[in-house]
Amino acid sequence: MDEQEKPISLVLFSGTDDKLSAAAVLAVGAAAMGRPVNVFLQYYALDAFRSGKVTADHALSAEATIAQAPVIRAHPGLHWSELFKQAKDVGEVNIQACALSMEMFHLKQADLDPMVDGIEGVAAFMASASDGQVVFI
Amino acid sequence: MDEQEKPISLVLFSGTDDKLSAAAVLAVGAAAMGRPVNVFLQYYALDAFRSGKVTADHALSAEATIAQAPVIRAHPGLHWSELFKQAKDVGEVNIQACALSMEMFHLKQADLDPMVDGIEGVAAFMASASDGQVVFI
Amino acid sequence: MDEQEKPISLVLFSGTDDKLSAAAVLAVGAAAMGRPVNVFLQYYALDAFRSGKVTADHALSAEATIAQAPVIRAHPGLHWSELFKQAKDVGEVNIQACALSMEMFHLKQADLDPMVDGIEGVAAFMASASDGQVVFI
Repeated sequence: MDEQEKPISLVLFSGTDDKLSAAAVLAVGAAAMGRPVNVFLQYYALDAFRSGKVTADHALSAEATIAQAPVIRAHPGLHWSELFKQAKDVGEVNIQACALSMEMFHLKQADLDPMVDGIEGVAAFMASASDGQVVFI
Repeated sequence: MDEQEKPISLVLFSGTDDKLSAAAVLAVGAAAMGRPVNVFLQYYALDAFRSGKVTADHALSAEATIAQAPVIRAHPGLHWSELFKQAKDVGEVNIQACALSMEMFHLKQADLDPMVDGIEGVAAFMASASDGQVVFI
Repeated sequence: MDEQEKPISLVLFSGTDDKLSAAAVLAVGAAAMGRPVNVFLQYYALDAFRSGKVTADHALSAEATIAQAPVIRAHPGLHWSELFKQAKDVGEVNIQACALSMEMFHLKQADLDPMVDGIEGVAAFMASASDGQVVFI
């Protein structure tokens, strides 16, 4: 396998807007380089991808100070959900909800934003990650 | 080396029950696929593996909202410590305490849960991670 | 490429002293083993590398308890900024500021500590990460 074709797999755990933005930027960057991108949504990140809640305010990480928060919020630029859509448009980006987290939050796929492609267990995710990079955010 | 045999190495930094559960699920998934799993315990994660404290309440991430926290806590399922034990039963899972964090918390191996296999420095950890995946949680 | 020569790439997002210390220890360990290390500074981590602010108090993760915090703070040992300098002295360690985060915080390279080597976009970072490990901290 050509090294550039190895997937990058993002395990999204955190559901704050700053971490989701950082993740989306990595996804767009990798997709633009022609690399397959797997996204696996767990816990708070899964909750942030609920239908109708994507563009809601998901707060910032607890470490954001009173000085930093308004500067981060004032930054123009695409919302992380738009960046993920852009990544899907330009490349091979597959977004899967973690089956265990779906069960935990009593969710069905119809409850999720349409950009989520499906639901899978951790074994399927690990298989798709293959020997590429795995990043936990 | 067969690609499937490359290790996955989890650097556990966070000691909250949600992140430890997410880590344990990845460990079980990788172990079930026959992959070697290295776990390196630092900071708050090391503190959570203290003997007699493993099943104590280690709180949730600061981002858990008042709506999310009770749903996460109500989810039945094995405790993360049981998942790590299960991972050790089915596969090659090695749990090491970071020597620097041991020193920081004035701990000896006898202070840790028996599922911790030993104490090692970062150089030994990096050597065991080899060219496999490294995930920081 | 020899496996040991593959880079390890650290995406630093968090700017708390505990996470920056954990990251610095990984950087020193990898550099000492002769591995190239790429550091990509985003969000709060970038803010922590501002000139004159590096050794300021950047707090601990929100999960630090009242019992843990004084123990962590009392631990002697090199400051994370000294560890990064040491890593640069012993190995091939390249520290880049994320262009998007620079823009968000209205920073220029002159505003950053001299140990930051430059500014780059996510595509350049992903290219330098190649097929090595990528760790998000």
